[in-house]
Amino acid sequence: MSNEETKLQELVALYAQAVRARDVETLAGFYAKDVVTFDAVGPLQRRGVEAVRKRAEEWLAQFQGPLGYEIRELRLDVAENEDIAFSSSLNAVDGRTRDGQEIKMWIRVTVGYRKLAGEWRIDHEHVAVPFDAKTMRAELDLRP
Amino acid sequence: MSNEETKLQELVALYAQAVRARDVETLAGFYAKDVVTFDAVGPLQRRGVEAVRKRAEEWLAQFQGPLGYEIRELRLDVAENEDIAFSSSLNAVDGRTRDGQEIKMWIRVTVGYRKLAGEWRIDHEHVAVPFDAKTMRAELDLRP
Repeated sequence: MSNEETKLQELVALYAQAVRARDVETLAGFYAKDVVTFDAVGPLQRRGVEAVRKRAEEWLAQFQGPLGYEIRELRLDVAENEDIAFSSSLNAVDGRTRDGQEIKMWIRVTVGYRKLAGEWRIDHEHVAVPFDAKTMRAELDLRP
Repeated sequence: MSNEETKLQELVALYAQAVRARDVETLAGFYAKDVVTFDAVGPLQRRGVEAVRKRAEEWLAQFQGPLGYEIRELRLDVAENEDIAFSSSLNAVDGRTRDGQEIKMWIRVTVGYRKLAGEWRIDHEHVAVPFDAKTMRAELDLRP
């Protein structure tokens, strides 16, 4: 495994750890200042690390008790001595909201990374679930 | 603009042109053999160019008459002498299905590219719309 691949795998693992810990400050530190994100819920896009931090706060504040967040089928496109990389994965979210709802869902996550001042940063993130074309409802119960 | 950026912009333009022309063979030629895609509708993922071609056929066969497909807010992360790149954009789909339904929707599209044998290929593609967390319905009426 290349050096850059190892670094990105570490970043992915730290990211998941920060989600489980609901540590918004650590999460926000992984993003480039001018990141653009496409999230599972609207709006269509968010621009900038402050908007991403605010959304992470809102999302993580919904949960109570332990929050599960596991990354599966991680696929990294990275090459040595290059400053751009991307990944895709299926991530399992497993938690309970403050109003008692059990959330167990798989999300598709694509991340674009750019090396800035020697550190890998998330420059683009796309999180989504598919919808059912017949019912038009989000498919939260799909399993890999 | 760098040489690689120009090449990728050309690929993006040719891709949109192939969608409008419902030219599945040209579309399939843009993908790496072992591409993984996350599509707007289920399943969670598809693996391999044959699965992608089959899905493109199904999707494009739904339409009749002119099909609009415009790429907006294209953001390319690409660097000279690198073999990995990614893009994000908001794409407008505007068409009429064979059963007479008018489709006018914006999709979020993230693409990961890899240069293979000197040619840029799509190694990962993530297409999705957000859902409304209250109604759980796909939000097909959002506008940038």
